[in-house]
Amino acid sequence: MTEEGSYDTVIVRFGCEVGVKSSRTRIRYEKEVCRQIKRLLEAEGVDYKMEYVFGRVYVSSCDAVKVAKLATRVFGVSSSSPALKTSSEMNDIVQAALKVAEKTLKGKRTFAVRCKRTGRHPYTSMDVCRKVGGEILQFFNEDKLKVDLKNPEVTIKIEVRDDKAYVYIEEYNGPGGFPLGVQGKVVCLLSGGIDSPVACWLMMKRGAFITPVYFDSSPTFSDELSRIKAVDCAKALFNWTGKGGEMYVVPYEGVLSVIKREAPERYTCILCKRFMYMVAEKIADREKAEGIVTGEALGEQASQTLRNIRVLNEAVKRYPVHRPLLGFDKVETEEIARRIGTYSISTRKSSGCNAAPRHPILKAKLEYVLEIEKKIESEKMAEEALKKSQKIKI
Amino acid sequence: MTEEGSYDTVIVRFGCEVGVKSSRTRIRYEKEVCRQIKRLLEAEGVDYKMEYVFGRVYVSSCDAVKVAKLATRVFGVSSSSPALKTSSEMNDIVQAALKVAEKTLKGKRTFAVRCKRTGRHPYTSMDVCRKVGGEILQFFNEDKLKVDLKNPEVTIKIEVRDDKAYVYIEEYNGPGGFPLGVQGKVVCLLSGGIDSPVACWLMMKRGAFITPVYFDSSPTFSDELSRIKAVDCAKALFNWTGKGGEMYVVPYEGVLSVIKREAPERYTCILCKRFMYMVAEKIADREKAEGIVTGEALGEQASQTLRNIRVLNEAVKRYPVHRPLLGFDKVETEEIARRIGTYSISTRKSSGCNAAPRHPILKAKLEYVLEIEKKIESEKMAEEALKKSQKIKI
Repeated sequence: MTEEGSYDTVIVRFGCEVGVKSSRTRIRYEKEVCRQIKRLLEAEGVDYKMEYVFGRVYVSSCDAVKVAKLATRVFGVSSSSPALKTSSEMNDIVQAALKVAEKTLKGKRTFAVRCKRTGRHPYTSMDVCRKVGGEILQFFNEDKLKVDLKNPEVTIKIEVRDDKAYVYIEEYNGPGGFPLGVQGKVVCLLSGGIDSPVACWLMMKRGAFITPVYFDSSPTFSDELSRIKAVDCAKALFNWTGKGGEMYVVPYEGVLSVIKREAPERYTCILCKRFMYMVAEKIADREKAEGIVTGEALGEQASQTLRNIRVLNEAVKRYPVHRPLLGFDKVETEEIARRIGTYSISTRKSSGCNAAPRHPILKAKLEYVLEIEKKIESEKMAEEALKKSQKIKI
Repeated sequence: MTEEGSYDTVIVRFGCEVGVKSSRTRIRYEKEVCRQIKRLLEAEGVDYKMEYVFGRVYVSSCDAVKVAKLATRVFGVSSSSPALKTSSEMNDIVQAALKVAEKTLKGKRTFAVRCKRTGRHPYTSMDVCRKVGGEILQFFNEDKLKVDLKNPEVTIKIEVRDDKAYVYIEEYNGPGGFPLGVQGKVVCLLSGGIDSPVACWLMMKRGAFITPVYFDSSPTFSDELSRIKAVDCAKALFNWTGKGGEMYVVPYEGVLSVIKREAPERYTCILCKRFMYMVAEKIADREKAEGIVTGEALGEQASQTLRNIRVLNEAVKRYPVHRPLLGFDKVETEEIARRIGTYSISTRKSSGCNAAPRHPILKAKLEYVLEIEKKIESEKMAEEALKKSQKIKI
């Protein structure tokens, strides 16, 4: 029997964000997290039984490790542990702990036992640790196994809750945040680069549904691989929801040609991004969204100076533009990208955007930008681009 | 002689954000970081000599550990190391390494040697590691010291650069980001709570000067301790700049009384925050800032739902409102607060705001908000509040 085989239950813990809400909101959020775990398990065809108690979910399953890993893909979950369930009788706890220890302590030199307890029992948590620790030492008699409370190789953890007890070793980290959907919807600019998918994910983590929008400037200014990257990033993001989603693909080559032809080269990026903002605003109207999200980080690119962001911001009148990465260093964004599964997609080879000038303007002038936009009829082009855009199922 | 006593130089490394810029920008940023390190060292009365080379700064000082720690308080610095400087002659490197080893390997069981090399030398990096490792083993002959490349207790690090070499152990982490000031100025709402100082700091990290604004609703709706907390947070933030700064304190008790009296209780927080946004916008005009910064995190408080943020956002017409914490969980914000020195201030006892209703509105209606604001003449009150506000030196 493998280590996995000894577990029959999963402990799922809710994130702090959920825990600090009023009881009413908290129960509503926790039940929503449960629903989303169920959806994910059912999509994966896993057999399970779920028991919700205030502050915890216990999922019984013969595939506990798989369930525990799936649960860490649900927003609002802070961590999960495959566990062996038993009654809260001391003898049962000892037997369960020995079973887990047998699989996990072989060949190890040091261990510790920790216990958390809720409810009334004829013993303290410390009693459990002492008793279980002693029995494990006796069981591994012949080996050189020792208790080390400071820096043990393995920690046997026991959670006693009323008439049940759970023995476990691992704690898998979840994303934390709020259950998806409790915050309504946002429209997100998604380029397929490293930043924008992370910005999307952070908004999802805080409870918002996303509608990604990709601007396709191929074949002149980018390539098909770039579009595929964006679509794959959207897929990776929707993977976190346990169900599909929709994204907009906006034809953009013509517009960018006009910008390249009619505007000074240094203004290409500002005009390009403002146009994207404008279309996003129209999509937000249509999708009844509450905001627009971009992957901008202050100073990362020339178009992302404080001044230029200000000029960009003026392109959107009816929604806030959210920039969750504004204060991030690239290494911090990359770390999240790796964790959420978009990094390997975003770093695939593709042409990227070849329309960007070598020396983009750092302090764009709004009046001048508005003048050019009037000349090239940006507003009208945005309307047309929206009409020609495709809404695709992911 | 202490371990500290064996160092005479500090290696300061620039953050990746600086490193990826074009050579011209990079040199400009790196030199700006140097200027800011100098300012900090001079403010602390430290004797030093600085040598800048592309990508690195070496600071000679007899107080190397202190200098290294001060350098980690300069934005744009990724890390620093107190080091012992010597020539790039192999014998000199060995002597320096032995000197450092003598202080740091006593009583240890395992060590490793690592070497990085730039320039032309009659040896490879590997030669240096082997030679130094061998000499150290010989030096500690009588002890049970061993080489362990995988998991050493101490790593002796050697950086060879042209005709110089540096031996060091520690790497202190700096904040990364961009040198302060390369991004212009932002006006920040600063409450003295945990979030807003972190939002300020993240903007500073990305290169922006800050002008904090505190709204003083004491004695009716908060207390003097709350104001002192905000001022102390501002001090802690300006501590990161090596020089002082300025903040606005806006008298707010009267305005909040009007809101409490004239508006439905559920709308208190929305109206309160919108008023703060309005005053911040006027201060941004006056200070020639490029944006407004708040500590809002999506869903953290009732006033921070997507819908409510949208209604808040409408209060500001001429600037983007930046919310660098939008995607943060509380634990993530707290972690930064601890690191930057504001957590212990923000968690001090104070009355906090007692004007907040028990059940604030979650989906405020903009039209209704505008109606109330017209009735209570918010715009006029904002003008007056600005006139009565104090600009204080920190």
